[in-house]
Amino acid sequence: MTSRQPRSAYAPPTSRCAIERALSLVGDRWSLLILREAHSGVTRFADMQARLGIAANMLSTRLDTLVEGGVLKRADYRQPGQRSRAEYRLTPSGRDLCVVLGALQQWAEVHMPPPGGPKVRRCERVSGKPVGVAFVNEAGVALDNDAVRLDGPLPTGEPR
Amino acid sequence: MTSRQPRSAYAPPTSRCAIERALSLVGDRWSLLILREAHSGVTRFADMQARLGIAANMLSTRLDTLVEGGVLKRADYRQPGQRSRAEYRLTPSGRDLCVVLGALQQWAEVHMPPPGGPKVRRCERVSGKPVGVAFVNEAGVALDNDAVRLDGPLPTGEPR
Repeated sequence: MTSRQPRSAYAPPTSRCAIERALSLVGDRWSLLILREAHSGVTRFADMQARLGIAANMLSTRLDTLVEGGVLKRADYRQPGQRSRAEYRLTPSGRDLCVVLGALQQWAEVHMPPPGGPKVRRCERVSGKPVGVAFVNEAGVALDNDAVRLDGPLPTGEPR
Repeated sequence: MTSRQPRSAYAPPTSRCAIERALSLVGDRWSLLILREAHSGVTRFADMQARLGIAANMLSTRLDTLVEGGVLKRADYRQPGQRSRAEYRLTPSGRDLCVVLGALQQWAEVHMPPPGGPKVRRCERVSGKPVGVAFVNEAGVALDNDAVRLDGPLPTGEPR
């Protein structure tokens, strides 16, 4: 933790809708692009700024929010002869957002394909074979989207 | 198609990054909440407005963008004795966003659980058993997130 005053106005969400709660933290383009960078291994403010072309104050505000929301963790690092700088690393909660990023990526590759082909792809770590994102049943077997339905509204306090 | 002039400034994205292309259309909180309503079966402007508590002009702009982006389709319906009204239905591309919404929902249920339990859940249509969202391999078997890596940047024009 640093003593710096966070500049964001992040308030933990109270909605019972999980999608709304998720969007209270990651419901804007910049936050998801910052998380894309974090998932690509970028940790430093200056590197994120250069790669995203985002104004420093906007990047700073969003990083504060993502830290307060528990998906990034700020730590200080110092290279020999330089002043201390902050770096931002994914927490376990932030790492789990890979499924959200993967779902967005897969959707656009199918429905908004670019002329030059994909820039990156997600693949199995060991084999390099392509992977997808899908609904899965309790046994971990992929389901067609049509085989899934919404159930609700559920009464308050019902266990999942 | 209607002759009404769309009020949004949606421009098809040119980035090679699929996440960036997806976010050019669904990279804001309201658009994803509108799509949540559409996935719940809500089709009428007045119903969306009442459920979301969104200003009419903001809802209208975003619906125009989602229609231009090809995830919603506008059609006119008329009830006996009333004037014609527009309704908005998911296209196949819009229906495929259920995986993105499901991923957001699952993430928040794990990492931002509300006190009262979930409001809705996604389940298998026939059995009602709970489903998840996960990376899957080519055989449709769920993978741990850690078993997936990013591969890139890929050269332009490389097939998937």
